[in-house]
Amino acid sequence: MRIGVFDSGVGGLTVLRALAERIPGAEYLYLGDTARLPYGAKSRETVTRYATSSARFLVEQGAEFLVIACNTASALALDAIRAAVPVPVLGVVETGANAADASSQTRDVLVIATAATVESHAYAAACAERGLRAMEKACPLLVPLVEEGWIEHPVTAEVLHIYLSELTAQARIEALEPDTLVLGCTHYPLLRAQIERVAHESLQVIDSAQVTAQQVEQMLDGSLSRSEGAGPRFFATDSVMKFRALGSRFLGRGIDGVELVDLGG
Amino acid sequence: MRIGVFDSGVGGLTVLRALAERIPGAEYLYLGDTARLPYGAKSRETVTRYATSSARFLVEQGAEFLVIACNTASALALDAIRAAVPVPVLGVVETGANAADASSQTRDVLVIATAATVESHAYAAACAERGLRAMEKACPLLVPLVEEGWIEHPVTAEVLHIYLSELTAQARIEALEPDTLVLGCTHYPLLRAQIERVAHESLQVIDSAQVTAQQVEQMLDGSLSRSEGAGPRFFATDSVMKFRALGSRFLGRGIDGVELVDLGG
Repeated sequence: MRIGVFDSGVGGLTVLRALAERIPGAEYLYLGDTARLPYGAKSRETVTRYATSSARFLVEQGAEFLVIACNTASALALDAIRAAVPVPVLGVVETGANAADASSQTRDVLVIATAATVESHAYAAACAERGLRAMEKACPLLVPLVEEGWIEHPVTAEVLHIYLSELTAQARIEALEPDTLVLGCTHYPLLRAQIERVAHESLQVIDSAQVTAQQVEQMLDGSLSRSEGAGPRFFATDSVMKFRALGSRFLGRGIDGVELVDLGG
Repeated sequence: MRIGVFDSGVGGLTVLRALAERIPGAEYLYLGDTARLPYGAKSRETVTRYATSSARFLVEQGAEFLVIACNTASALALDAIRAAVPVPVLGVVETGANAADASSQTRDVLVIATAATVESHAYAAACAERGLRAMEKACPLLVPLVEEGWIEHPVTAEVLHIYLSELTAQARIEALEPDTLVLGCTHYPLLRAQIERVAHESLQVIDSAQVTAQQVEQMLDGSLSRSEGAGPRFFATDSVMKFRALGSRFLGRGIDGVELVDLGG
């Protein structure tokens, strides 16, 4: 089984890492569309165009199953990607919503994500389909803080405190009783420990990388080899040096052999 | 005289604003390549490709003089842009270096900018040509803080304090005696008041928007109408709604009539 993992950048490497730990028998192809990132501030039309060309590339390279690890692309372009490629496609918005559904007792959940993901209201829609009420908040400073490497940093703690205070205050105003917090961006698992410290202890934190790997394993159960697969292949649309340097923080180990691809644009 | 102003996004509107205040008799065309922003984390090849296609577009629309208000494009692609279009081209790196040259008594200057601008060492090179020593520092959190609207905000003050402390400590280690601080990113003029509060009072702050407008005026002196020009035309390669919403903060007034253009990619 060859699994393609797509993200606009290196954040999706948190999903690849969780997949490879949980399903070591698969082969992995990872594409970071780094020449055109970030998707988070772009329109639905632009994100759809970029994401479908990226998905087609992974299928051309042999992917038999696609994981859309980019929340923005999952939120804005999942139907278009499914229409564009002949393989099963799973997006992190649905896996996050599934996990929130399984976790929440009160049926009220909070979601933090990029501006575009929040503006799409994809999490709210996916949660509503599962009988959950969701309150979403854009947290545009968290990705740059992670990329600056300020993971365990007082400024990051202060920014998280501000964002989560605003979100829980708003939840109170609208009479929600949330018991679950979905990390709706693949960068956020790196802040999980900080978020769990800052968030109220009654909140269960859903890490999209972990829950996506769980759900892919369930879907592929039976079609997986138990032996170790070959190492992942990495593709990037811009500087492979930057991909390696920044990406190793997300993957949790060194990256070599990144292949530069031109998807136009 | 029709002046084209180019930036990867809305930050260059600080330059357009300064130009329109100083040279009201010109007509302005502004292009924000918002579908492909930010340039700051992309390679020289990619930035050059994006910037030359953007410059050609402005000349096709009638621009007789181009201001490259994007520091990254000025740093990485100015020669390529000059080769690609038949009109005079001025970039904000050279205008900033010219102003530092005029300002500095000690001949040592500090520069804060995006990661790509710093990695290009374009400011250091432009300063060296003028007999100045420059120490550059990447400040990747400042753009997202401005775009979040956290202009007068304690987190922004703390981040500025950290960045400027690191920069001045490094300058001391290398025995520099800086008296000038160049704001090497068009977003930073919005933080000018905060930066002047946090920076040591012995530092003269160079605002690239202001000094670029001054130098364009000097270059065009004599060819300018003294009457008021028509209002600027705005072009963006992605969501015109977002351009309007975010851009008005940089321009200092409302924006209407943004035209969507497709430069490919």
